[in-house]
Amino acid sequence: MNIPWSKMALNTPSSVVRDMLQAAQAPGMISLAGGLPAQSSFPLEAIRVAYEKVFASGASALQYAETEGYRPLRAKIAERLESKGIPASPDHMLLTTGSQQSIDLVCRILLDPGDCVLVESPTYLAALQVIHSYQAISHGVSCDDEGMLPESLEELLQLHRPKLVYINPTFSNPSGKVWSRERRQKAVDLCRKYGVLILEDDPYGEIRFNPEELDAPALTELDAAYEGPSNVIYTSTFSKTVAPGLRTGWILAAPDIVKIAARAKQGADLHSSSIDQRALHALMETFDLDEHIRGISADYKQRMEKMTELMTKKVWEGISWNSPQGGMFLWLELPESMSASNLFTYGIQEKVCIVPGDSFYAGTPELNRMRINFTHTDPELLPEAVERMDRAIKRWHASVQSDATVTM
Amino acid sequence: MNIPWSKMALNTPSSVVRDMLQAAQAPGMISLAGGLPAQSSFPLEAIRVAYEKVFASGASALQYAETEGYRPLRAKIAERLESKGIPASPDHMLLTTGSQQSIDLVCRILLDPGDCVLVESPTYLAALQVIHSYQAISHGVSCDDEGMLPESLEELLQLHRPKLVYINPTFSNPSGKVWSRERRQKAVDLCRKYGVLILEDDPYGEIRFNPEELDAPALTELDAAYEGPSNVIYTSTFSKTVAPGLRTGWILAAPDIVKIAARAKQGADLHSSSIDQRALHALMETFDLDEHIRGISADYKQRMEKMTELMTKKVWEGISWNSPQGGMFLWLELPESMSASNLFTYGIQEKVCIVPGDSFYAGTPELNRMRINFTHTDPELLPEAVERMDRAIKRWHASVQSDATVTM
Repeated sequence: MNIPWSKMALNTPSSVVRDMLQAAQAPGMISLAGGLPAQSSFPLEAIRVAYEKVFASGASALQYAETEGYRPLRAKIAERLESKGIPASPDHMLLTTGSQQSIDLVCRILLDPGDCVLVESPTYLAALQVIHSYQAISHGVSCDDEGMLPESLEELLQLHRPKLVYINPTFSNPSGKVWSRERRQKAVDLCRKYGVLILEDDPYGEIRFNPEELDAPALTELDAAYEGPSNVIYTSTFSKTVAPGLRTGWILAAPDIVKIAARAKQGADLHSSSIDQRALHALMETFDLDEHIRGISADYKQRMEKMTELMTKKVWEGISWNSPQGGMFLWLELPESMSASNLFTYGIQEKVCIVPGDSFYAGTPELNRMRINFTHTDPELLPEAVERMDRAIKRWHASVQSDATVTM
Repeated sequence: MNIPWSKMALNTPSSVVRDMLQAAQAPGMISLAGGLPAQSSFPLEAIRVAYEKVFASGASALQYAETEGYRPLRAKIAERLESKGIPASPDHMLLTTGSQQSIDLVCRILLDPGDCVLVESPTYLAALQVIHSYQAISHGVSCDDEGMLPESLEELLQLHRPKLVYINPTFSNPSGKVWSRERRQKAVDLCRKYGVLILEDDPYGEIRFNPEELDAPALTELDAAYEGPSNVIYTSTFSKTVAPGLRTGWILAAPDIVKIAARAKQGADLHSSSIDQRALHALMETFDLDEHIRGISADYKQRMEKMTELMTKKVWEGISWNSPQGGMFLWLELPESMSASNLFTYGIQEKVCIVPGDSFYAGTPELNRMRINFTHTDPELLPEAVERMDRAIKRWHASVQSDATVTM
């Protein structure tokens, strides 16, 4: 039979990155494609002990639980956010199965077909996918290294009357940039002016290479200067600071949003794993998470520096990249004529996997951008990874050469 | 600001049962409302050991993982299903965050606003909620104690051209009934005839009080006699056989359905907890799950018998109930004039919580039905629970009396 798919199914194409991750699993492949944290960074022993404590507390940890999530964990997260300047309360929080579910739930409760969402240009591709699966339309706001350009944001707010502005302002995926304080303030003010909610996605914000140099308050913190319920829906996760396998993230938002998102979550899966939530709570009671995150950040900084040093030595003509102050990604600009998709294909032939940048754009994509991850590959393998990228680039040059020959 | 909710949000009312569960948490309340398994049935020690094994296997358990779920667990589940006569393969399976997510994902990939789903009358109220949240319409097929009436099913298949037939054929929630083999076969044949998919929700099918007497093959097993991909989407869960806190269920379906459902799940939450999935796998390697389920079933049978014995002794005029062969619920029929909603209110006054049946109907509800759960309350408390129900019933009679007096 022909299965009568819903429009949602038809508007949910397979993620390019997902397909690439499958390509990346070929034997001998070095993958710089996924957004995976370093496995060596997971505090395995502390996590093991945390689960032990959960089981020692008895069988109630195994029963059905509140949709909103384990309240003592919400309280711990709120306390930690408060200590970083973000106004938070367990009553304004919903625990989710990671940031991806946070994005999905927010879209679910706000977006109807034809609605519009403004995003950065470029932006996180899995957010675009979710937005499009709800048959909403995304428009890219023009950005520079400091974030969204206020004129462009205001113009599109007026033009499209969006339901939501989705941003990833600190070490954004894929560009690795950090919005300046001024741009953050401007976005908060403009969204208040036009009555449009902001979804602030902050999975990487704590992975800071030079924390003392960073002036990057969360938009939800800046928004708190306004009266009334927050206009910012803030989401983050333990995936990058503890481990992704625990699938625990959270939404911090105005009480009405949390209430309706919890109803949506109840229909979607009743609640997330209560064992994992309790284990995270037990972990946070004794484990020095801040110290642990400093360790991860120092490790990632070294990896990033090693990677860029190796790439710099290659003297690739016309290829440049950012110098990220945190997060997990390098964002490369290739010569105009060099298509990142072609480079991806040559990379696969050389057994190195990168992500072409074109899937990260709401509108017309830039075809000469690519994202590479520096946190997942064993640092010992980075020289070989760069060698392979070098050979892939040479293949591209050779192909251009031979095309030119054919043309003559 | 007025939050511009989506139609999905507006079509997702808070679950009546959810609100009742909150009422049920009042101090001193005895709750017969929720569909919670007995906490004493959770194999805490075996689960503890299983997690220990997962952590002993190293940090890879904590990394991002496949959306489809941990393959060795899928293989174990498939093996177990095969041993019970259900054709299964890990390639035709998607692990989910419990049955609720299975229902949501299936609705997500199939239902557009205005689409129709046929359901039993009565049916599982959280399935109705999900169907309605996608702005689809549900129609109740007439049922008797053996399942859907084939004439009613065929008439509605012709009339409404539904996208899906949702059923819960073994110890169904709320009615506790078991479909006869003949009705199962008939439903399979009719849905094949009209090219309509079946969603077979089977969370309770293994909790059998008299297994030798039961001739209740899964519809997915009967459907396998037909050529080509399965027309039945089968879902079940570990929530009732191991513990709900692990939030692990599965979809078994035709490869195309699994593929598209996995894409939908990727957008919804990337994947479910990989630690919990690995722990379930470790558990299944050594733990005698069949023996464990026999133990749960024997325990629940005793609880059910004790409950019905206590109720029988009360000689409530005009009140009858089923004699379930498994599962977790008793389904009561009250006198026509006795509204279960009123009885619920009197119950709350007496500190006992039951569920009025009216939320379990797609169309016009029966107002004199109520569901009570016999698996969650401590058996020692059952006599007191029945005393309180008795007092609630007396309150109802007294109120009718006083109404009659007022009328005079």
